[in-house]
Amino acid sequence: MDYPSIIRKVYNQVTEMENLGKVASYIPELASINPEKFGMHLTSLDGQSYGIGDCNEKLSIQSISKVLSLTMAYNMKGSSLWKRVGVEPSGTPFNSLVQLEHDLGIPRNPLINAGAIVICDILISNLKDPKDDFLDYVRNLTGNLGINFNEKVAGSEKSAGYRNRALINLMKAFGNIENDIDKVLDFYFHMCSIEMTCKELSETFIYLANDGIMPETNQQILNLSRSKRMNAIMQTCGFYDEAGEFSFRVGLPGKSGVGGGIIAVYPENFSLAVWSPRLNPKGNSYKGFRFLESFTTETGHSIF
Amino acid sequence: MDYPSIIRKVYNQVTEMENLGKVASYIPELASINPEKFGMHLTSLDGQSYGIGDCNEKLSIQSISKVLSLTMAYNMKGSSLWKRVGVEPSGTPFNSLVQLEHDLGIPRNPLINAGAIVICDILISNLKDPKDDFLDYVRNLTGNLGINFNEKVAGSEKSAGYRNRALINLMKAFGNIENDIDKVLDFYFHMCSIEMTCKELSETFIYLANDGIMPETNQQILNLSRSKRMNAIMQTCGFYDEAGEFSFRVGLPGKSGVGGGIIAVYPENFSLAVWSPRLNPKGNSYKGFRFLESFTTETGHSIF
Amino acid sequence: MDYPSIIRKVYNQVTEMENLGKVASYIPELASINPEKFGMHLTSLDGQSYGIGDCNEKLSIQSISKVLSLTMAYNMKGSSLWKRVGVEPSGTPFNSLVQLEHDLGIPRNPLINAGAIVICDILISNLKDPKDDFLDYVRNLTGNLGINFNEKVAGSEKSAGYRNRALINLMKAFGNIENDIDKVLDFYFHMCSIEMTCKELSETFIYLANDGIMPETNQQILNLSRSKRMNAIMQTCGFYDEAGEFSFRVGLPGKSGVGGGIIAVYPENFSLAVWSPRLNPKGNSYKGFRFLESFTTETGHSIF
Amino acid sequence: MDYPSIIRKVYNQVTEMENLGKVASYIPELASINPEKFGMHLTSLDGQSYGIGDCNEKLSIQSISKVLSLTMAYNMKGSSLWKRVGVEPSGTPFNSLVQLEHDLGIPRNPLINAGAIVICDILISNLKDPKDDFLDYVRNLTGNLGINFNEKVAGSEKSAGYRNRALINLMKAFGNIENDIDKVLDFYFHMCSIEMTCKELSETFIYLANDGIMPETNQQILNLSRSKRMNAIMQTCGFYDEAGEFSFRVGLPGKSGVGGGIIAVYPENFSLAVWSPRLNPKGNSYKGFRFLESFTTETGHSIF
Repeated sequence: MDYPSIIRKVYNQVTEMENLGKVASYIPELASINPEKFGMHLTSLDGQSYGIGDCNEKLSIQSISKVLSLTMAYNMKGSSLWKRVGVEPSGTPFNSLVQLEHDLGIPRNPLINAGAIVICDILISNLKDPKDDFLDYVRNLTGNLGINFNEKVAGSEKSAGYRNRALINLMKAFGNIENDIDKVLDFYFHMCSIEMTCKELSETFIYLANDGIMPETNQQILNLSRSKRMNAIMQTCGFYDEAGEFSFRVGLPGKSGVGGGIIAVYPENFSLAVWSPRLNPKGNSYKGFRFLESFTTETGHSIF
Repeated sequence: MDYPSIIRKVYNQVTEMENLGKVASYIPELASINPEKFGMHLTSLDGQSYGIGDCNEKLSIQSISKVLSLTMAYNMKGSSLWKRVGVEPSGTPFNSLVQLEHDLGIPRNPLINAGAIVICDILISNLKDPKDDFLDYVRNLTGNLGINFNEKVAGSEKSAGYRNRALINLMKAFGNIENDIDKVLDFYFHMCSIEMTCKELSETFIYLANDGIMPETNQQILNLSRSKRMNAIMQTCGFYDEAGEFSFRVGLPGKSGVGGGIIAVYPENFSLAVWSPRLNPKGNSYKGFRFLESFTTETGHSIF
Repeated sequence: MDYPSIIRKVYNQVTEMENLGKVASYIPELASINPEKFGMHLTSLDGQSYGIGDCNEKLSIQSISKVLSLTMAYNMKGSSLWKRVGVEPSGTPFNSLVQLEHDLGIPRNPLINAGAIVICDILISNLKDPKDDFLDYVRNLTGNLGINFNEKVAGSEKSAGYRNRALINLMKAFGNIENDIDKVLDFYFHMCSIEMTCKELSETFIYLANDGIMPETNQQILNLSRSKRMNAIMQTCGFYDEAGEFSFRVGLPGKSGVGGGIIAVYPENFSLAVWSPRLNPKGNSYKGFRFLESFTTETGHSIF
Repeated sequence: MDYPSIIRKVYNQVTEMENLGKVASYIPELASINPEKFGMHLTSLDGQSYGIGDCNEKLSIQSISKVLSLTMAYNMKGSSLWKRVGVEPSGTPFNSLVQLEHDLGIPRNPLINAGAIVICDILISNLKDPKDDFLDYVRNLTGNLGINFNEKVAGSEKSAGYRNRALINLMKAFGNIENDIDKVLDFYFHMCSIEMTCKELSETFIYLANDGIMPETNQQILNLSRSKRMNAIMQTCGFYDEAGEFSFRVGLPGKSGVGGGIIAVYPENFSLAVWSPRLNPKGNSYKGFRFLESFTTETGHSIF
């Protein structure tokens, strides 16, 4: 399929739409982003690589990085992970403490804040130098040394992160955090501060479209079964309280971040990253969502 | 792919497993079912039709019928449905009133009891003779006049259905039920009392694997977009509080019923019905779930 | 203490205040009440009986009657009541289903709707002709044959009572309702439709200020311990989600109704009924609450 | 009334009862207490001062101290307190985060952990040297210099206090904590570590039985209205999720602590401290509760 022409068409349509939604404002580094940024990049298994708009500008990938830390931990620990975090959609706003209290400190899934913090705790218990090791891991996926944490973002998150502190303390009270709270949060905030361009995002996540294997290098990131299960988790849990709506309208596994980025994966075909900073009321990129909806409608390419 | 040989293999494996779980016992008609019944039937778009075990015995399809009433209503009313019911996974046990109160009478999705009751209310407002019209609709899908309500089951459900009465009264209090409560519940209990064999189930649901079209007759049941969206809803909402787990382990859209039946759909390929009455703690068929997990592992056929 | 002069003083003060709040509008009989009605009557053990304003006009006592049905049931069944209903404040809006689901059908206390419905169920199981027997019981407290149900109010409540139907069905699902739902609700709606004047209210409830004994007749309505416990329940549970605020500002056991009436009891001293139909956001009489707050401030008479 | 003989009688009765319940074990200092300790002391306005059992042994008063910090803050800030904390019973287990999230960081009342932490925050904003100033304040109530923090207890609470850290971080996220979290918690844990004997407890809290005035010195601790309101808050909020039950069975304002102490106040008459370390499932002293229930039954002295 001629993806570039469809991307151009949908890009133009969505560019002309009113850009509703609000840029995340809880830290200055996100609040100051130009809200009209808009770009996307597709990388396909049949060799297409096409971007448009602000596709080569770095964005704060935020929660999208939770898929990468989960990949690293899943590959390391296998199904023992699921004793400490579930795989069910949250069904309540994304950082709610209610569920955590009800389920005695076990987060519903690894893509909500609480669950991603547990994954960070697991990585810390299993890595020598967690931040460096994780960054190396992410860089090695595509051999791209230009991927970095943004220390300013990590620092601001730390200053503003009272709710995440509430989450981790509650889990610690239930015995589901092994390491020192400050150390886990420092890692967590760094992990979320990673910056990539849309091009880098789509290149990084292509292994999830290819049964766990990086097509360029044949490097196996996850085995077949785990790669499929990662997609399943993204499908049911990747969009906070809007996972059903995303599944319904877009029909692709994916993950969004509060920086306005979304990665979507069409298994056996492509990965596609979109970026537009204004968020809808559920915390997902307003135009990113609209773009993906139109794109799958145009192509007829969804998993259903 | 040679589905029959894989089905036989997995059937034998699962038959030998310990059959954990408990048969639903809230009405005598379900409680008295032989708990060791076990059968399945696959219907594929490439012409395969293969069953094994108790695949030609009628079972009470129960909640599986919610997909059929939703199909009928969706085709009739289109996206106006979503003003009265959401498309998000429930995140709490399947018949909880908490969510309904929080969301002012709007059920999270049409496959939980509350949502299916709203769909019944919509059908009643739009059909002359709701029970007959719905039964005709289901029979016409495959031209099978042997499909019927089980009046005894419908009657028992009615006697035992206090929680469903609580749900519908709460929704009526919020203004989300138009018709007389007894009339809506009578329709709802009849709808859930439909009986089919595994073979009939897989033949009935094949349109969801074929972009909304019945392959035998070319009859369009749903348009392409709606057919995909039905699969999306089944994927995120079809297994009560275990939708994530089913997605994670099986990776196919589907719907289960408290009678121990499960229908699963592999878009562009097949529909597969399984039946085993013992339920796991989340209310889904214990062996049915295990069968489907092994089947998708063996075939590698999942949507992810 | 010279109660009449204090009552006159506070009555004049509160009369001049802006009358905020809204008249209950869910049934026409309440919605059509003149919102500026305002009256009160005090009956003391030292023989004072003083009313002012609209103190001799009938009002729909609504939930205040829950104290009378509880008195009847408590005297009949003693502490066995507390197996089916708790004595804890609700902590959530007065007709929430959340708590009921969490506590498996046991209402938190007998003065919220769900709890009062359980009390009605108990009375039906123990009375020959529940409605007549209850009305006789209430009339006999003061020998006043002019106390009656308002059939129109009972009928309107029945038509509008979907939320109460949700409550009773949920409790029935949990096994905490013995009798036919329609019969219980018919009794419940009649009980709440009783009409009294402020004078009749204060005369009826004086037994709770007198250790369970009617002073005029020496008739023992409740024994000492139970009379005190009734006051305790009113103190912690009598004002929906505002019991703490009422305790804090007024400091007397009491019960309010959605018709704008409030009864307050000062043990060993007096009972005092107030009526003003406009309700504050928590469902309690706006001016009634203000009157009682000023009255206890002026007299220094509270239980604390 | 001859309180000593009644105390002896009830003491003997309760001593012989089976001592159900469990000693708090979350910190070693509480876990190692002899579970069979049992003592009480009554101080009355008519000059009686009588203790029995382990009444002169220091106990960790824990949450009872929340009444003292609230007294200090209430006297200092008056009704402006109620912008930051409510006066309603919690209706859920005593350290639940659910309510706090629902009410946007405003705790339901100042006697649950979250509310007491807010009071500590307010004191820190208004005191030069919060810990010393508070200790001085408590000592000055009765001129007793032998009252001290237990540094070991404070330290252990700090190490174990993840749930309290979750609470304070959540409130900080909602903007309801002004000061540094570690500073507030350090003060909070010290405040809860105060030790007193039953005799000291009853002497300290006698001002709440005497309209806010210390009888020995005529020192006004709170004005009349505030003193009554403190009693009202204790009545509706002093016993975690068992406030209604305590009100129902005992009928006196009071406050319990996880160390097994309870203070109860009979306005215009006496204050009474009881101590027995084994706690019932709701976290209140098992024998302390039983003692007070029998005591008020024997004396007929309750506020109702």
